[in-house]
Amino acid sequence: MPWLAFVGLGLKLKDITLEALETLRNANTIFLDTYTSISPDINVSSLRRLVGKEVIPLRRRDIEDENAEKIFNELSRGRNVAFAVIGDPFIATTHVALLLEAIRRNVEVKVIHGLTIYTVAISYSGLMVYKFGRCATIVYPKEGIFYDYFYDVVKENLKLGLHTLLLLELDVDNNVFMTANDALKLMLEAEGKRKEGIISKDMKVLVIARAGFPTQKYVYGKIASLIRENFGPPPHTIIVPGKLHYIEEDALKRFLIN
Amino acid sequence: MPWLAFVGLGLKLKDITLEALETLRNANTIFLDTYTSISPDINVSSLRRLVGKEVIPLRRRDIEDENAEKIFNELSRGRNVAFAVIGDPFIATTHVALLLEAIRRNVEVKVIHGLTIYTVAISYSGLMVYKFGRCATIVYPKEGIFYDYFYDVVKENLKLGLHTLLLLELDVDNNVFMTANDALKLMLEAEGKRKEGIISKDMKVLVIARAGFPTQKYVYGKIASLIRENFGPPPHTIIVPGKLHYIEEDALKRFLIN
Repeated sequence: MPWLAFVGLGLKLKDITLEALETLRNANTIFLDTYTSISPDINVSSLRRLVGKEVIPLRRRDIEDENAEKIFNELSRGRNVAFAVIGDPFIATTHVALLLEAIRRNVEVKVIHGLTIYTVAISYSGLMVYKFGRCATIVYPKEGIFYDYFYDVVKENLKLGLHTLLLLELDVDNNVFMTANDALKLMLEAEGKRKEGIISKDMKVLVIARAGFPTQKYVYGKIASLIRENFGPPPHTIIVPGKLHYIEEDALKRFLIN
Repeated sequence: MPWLAFVGLGLKLKDITLEALETLRNANTIFLDTYTSISPDINVSSLRRLVGKEVIPLRRRDIEDENAEKIFNELSRGRNVAFAVIGDPFIATTHVALLLEAIRRNVEVKVIHGLTIYTVAISYSGLMVYKFGRCATIVYPKEGIFYDYFYDVVKENLKLGLHTLLLLELDVDNNVFMTANDALKLMLEAEGKRKEGIISKDMKVLVIARAGFPTQKYVYGKIASLIRENFGPPPHTIIVPGKLHYIEEDALKRFLIN
């Protein structure tokens, strides 16, 4: 019986694990999800060079609208399939539905985990993982609707003294890559609407640009200063710290600007 | 100037990334942290075989009590040092203090991230990462003191409909590896003391044994049933689900026992 392997690649090409590489090399057909995330150097041609065989790009509609028939067709032809994904296959992506469909169809499934922004961003910050409350994503207003869900998450976490990891909207198909500058503006805009005294220009946050990439940049400071900084290209991430332990204070000092 | 690389190895030998392997091979001296975590197959001899050079084990006291002089002595002799760690170097370990000390001493620092239980356990569960509240660790009573901190974390998360990742005490130096069975008993014991109606025998939780290992096992069911199950050797982890989305319900059904 053929197998379907969900293969997490991590954030950049050198994040690939020995297990991922072995699985890709043992697959008959390799698909690459090209729509849920971006990487400085993972793409169809770099992966093809690394693995030494053809890599077929998949877009969102190939998975969602067409019920992933491209994948299941290969399996029904008896071929072992690797579905490669930037990051981890089931952290912050929509691939769980595909996993369940494969299980429903009695396909043998393998899962190879990969490095993900969720722990990479936190790790180097020096903030303690058990002090993070739930995370949220900041998205642009759409059709006149302003989404302030993230405001409630930050508020709820701060009330408990917890840190908040904020991911920023990233939609590769539609070429949307939110910068930290835009996210900070939306944070102040949310405060302007809600007026609950949660976010202010004097609030100190950590901006993380390209976590895990060779050009990564961590900058800590007041929103008023950060909003004018140039962090370079996305992806960007923000951490709103809660109550800080003294080691966490020390860790953040490394990244402090005026 | 010599460098100090913090190298995350992931949970098992095949989780090693290309970057970690390259960094270990470029180091003059390789230390392995042998005390913060356990792995089915990462140890001094397997790492030595993989990398092709000597690997020196470090115990907790080498890092904490002796101010990591073994590491800084090598650096002062002009040698590039890799400090290898199971998992990720700064997620759930005490290595942030060492990182800050290296920065204080103007040592060039590199950080190579590794797979960690925090996202591996969540990923395959199919539960949504943005619905996890803060996590906690269940520890054994010590000198007559019962630690029920985890009870408050579960309570607080459930109130918000959030899931809770519970790590179980693991102290390699003292040979303590808590099983899920013991953890479930401590959860019921905490309820017996607190009587706030948070945890009960009928509560359904997910037990994860050896997440990310080839022998991993995910089992979902009522505490009353799980408490009698044999999950095999540690490490074990528990997830207490909050309010479930229907895709999360479907994902958990895979692991259901009566």
